Amino acid sequence: MSRYWSDIVHRLTPYVPGEQPLLAHPVKLNTNENPYPPSPRVLEAIRQELADAGESLRRYPDPTALKLRETVAAYHGIRADQVFAGNGSDEVLALTFQALLKHDKPLLFPDITYSFYPTYARLFDVDYRTIPLDDSFAINVDDYAVANGGILFPNPNAPTGRPLPLADIERLVAKNADSVTVIDEAYVDFGAESAIGLIDRFPNLLVVQTVSKSRSLAGMRVGFAFGNAELIDALNRVKDSFNSYPLDRLAQVAARAAYEDDAWFRDTCAKVIASRERLAAGLTALGFDVVPSAANLLFARHEAYDAATLVLRLREREIFVRRFNAPRIDQHLRISVGTDAECGLLLDALRDIFSAYIG
Amino acid sequence: MSRYWSDIVHRLTPYVPGEQPLLAHPVKLNTNENPYPPSPRVLEAIRQELADAGESLRRYPDPTALKLRETVAAYHGIRADQVFAGNGSDEVLALTFQALLKHDKPLLFPDITYSFYPTYARLFDVDYRTIPLDDSFAINVDDYAVANGGILFPNPNAPTGRPLPLADIERLVAKNADSVTVIDEAYVDFGAESAIGLIDRFPNLLVVQTVSKSRSLAGMRVGFAFGNAELIDALNRVKDSFNSYPLDRLAQVAARAAYEDDAWFRDTCAKVIASRERLAAGLTALGFDVVPSAANLLFARHEAYDAATLVLRLREREIFVRRFNAPRIDQHLRISVGTDAECGLLLDALRDIFSAYIG
Repeated sequence: MSRYWSDIVHRLTPYVPGEQPLLAHPVKLNTNENPYPPSPRVLEAIRQELADAGESLRRYPDPTALKLRETVAAYHGIRADQVFAGNGSDEVLALTFQALLKHDKPLLFPDITYSFYPTYARLFDVDYRTIPLDDSFAINVDDYAVANGGILFPNPNAPTGRPLPLADIERLVAKNADSVTVIDEAYVDFGAESAIGLIDRFPNLLVVQTVSKSRSLAGMRVGFAFGNAELIDALNRVKDSFNSYPLDRLAQVAARAAYEDDAWFRDTCAKVIASRERLAAGLTALGFDVVPSAANLLFARHEAYDAATLVLRLREREIFVRRFNAPRIDQHLRISVGTDAECGLLLDALRDIFSAYIG
Repeated sequence: MSRYWSDIVHRLTPYVPGEQPLLAHPVKLNTNENPYPPSPRVLEAIRQELADAGESLRRYPDPTALKLRETVAAYHGIRADQVFAGNGSDEVLALTFQALLKHDKPLLFPDITYSFYPTYARLFDVDYRTIPLDDSFAINVDDYAVANGGILFPNPNAPTGRPLPLADIERLVAKNADSVTVIDEAYVDFGAESAIGLIDRFPNLLVVQTVSKSRSLAGMRVGFAFGNAELIDALNRVKDSFNSYPLDRLAQVAARAAYEDDAWFRDTCAKVIASRERLAAGLTALGFDVVPSAANLLFARHEAYDAATLVLRLREREIFVRRFNAPRIDQHLRISVGTDAECGLLLDALRDIFSAYIG
């Protein structure tokens, strides 16, 4: 606390990202990173940008990331003016709160969801109301048929991984023509249906994606919003009042190359999905209740073992998973899907912990 | 305009960065980039981070950029908790407006200064008042002895390049103990005195720097704030409510390597300073009034030739300089200092334009 702080600083509840352990070889299943590296074309594109003794690095990047947006637009069959690029989907979401979700009526999002949402709301003084998931952690879109200044949720939802059918999203967006619905598709490529195909029909739909998960580039910080050009314009106006150049030159070429290697992307996603199904079977066999997931994570609880204790016991074995100390979910573990080998180490460790468990 | 926009979007006046021409070999003297590439150690550090098939890129970067902050802190002889790292000094300044400069009393900054400041103020609804520079474009710190919620200016000032002695800054900060003074030192390494040495004595002083100019890394987007740990804490709280990871892995290692090659840095700055003095002499010989500069830019006007016309005539020759269509300075050119060869091309082009000038 300080007299020099603006008032807002006193009221913030900063987001706490998952731990980045400094160990040499942790089994890191706590931040939903992809277990496979990015396409070799990404490395080649970065190396090319370093040509001529790094001559390009002395120059500002394209503030509009036009080539990247053109590549991603072509990939999705839309226009570049329907694409916004930002410093990871976290920055894209932050700018979205400021540009499109601050209205007199409250923003709606689920009670169990990405824990950054209430943090953004406090930073930008956005009034919000949470809508409970049902007992199976499903979103029921009819629960959102109340006056609102915007609707926001991930599909699949975080931290549950549970997907919502595209037909439900279409019904919701059609019913809420007066406010923007934002679908946060950070995990969509692991088995859910994207709503990008709806943006031409619905001027009130914004879809947010990232290269951090399915394209193995969490380390490079690139995210996107897709929507009507008018919505994208609002994001650009706020971005250009905040930071003209959020994407450096290497991030722009890296993300572009990732979209140009669709075979790598599809192969990586297929491997993660197969590992997820094996891990879900393994956890179920150990007695866990596992939420059906279309993401690169599993959300699971065990009746017999305390979740916080399991996190600690796993951590002693240099295996990292995440738990949220929040209502309804404090007995769940959120487990990122690793390689089959990493998932095997996790299952072995859990067996070992259970055999010696003292609660 | 759209019913979906938050109110603030309608009131913004986004910053317009200098043009990034798509020509193969423009003489680009319009965005104050360094004419020399970054240290070879920067390229080496980036290449090392790509080892193991880009294994590290799939993982989130350190959200606190600790190693980078430790390196920069050691360089300046301060502690890492006195250093904030952001996505370029533009993002650092934006977060500073939100975290430290929004108070009941108005923020003060010069009438002629970095044109992003009023844009930030509108985005974050910060009340501000401008203080006129004197006729020689100098800041008189006694003009700032009025009630305020903060004071902000670049040293050297933009777009003039005119430096302020450190003794004046110390006097100003000492007199304004109740609010934060922010010194934006984007250009300081080209001949002005940094105020970083004062942060231990003044808890109300924040100093902002960037690797975009003197360290030739405009393309990588890294900036810093230096100050009392309490001020840095405010910036971290806002940053962690906005975007946990604004610096990607390659930006972190690149900036760190740039600080580790001090000889390259000093040599580059010395070359730019020498070119600036030669260019200033050349412009003066052509009849320009040139503001004394301690930056990598010159601010100059010619009694006989219209500035907007000169910008167009130079542009036809693929030479880019910048002009601001603003009161008191619309007849000035802001010319980034290039290599001696680039400066020579500019002087030749001006001679040519003058010889054929029709106003």
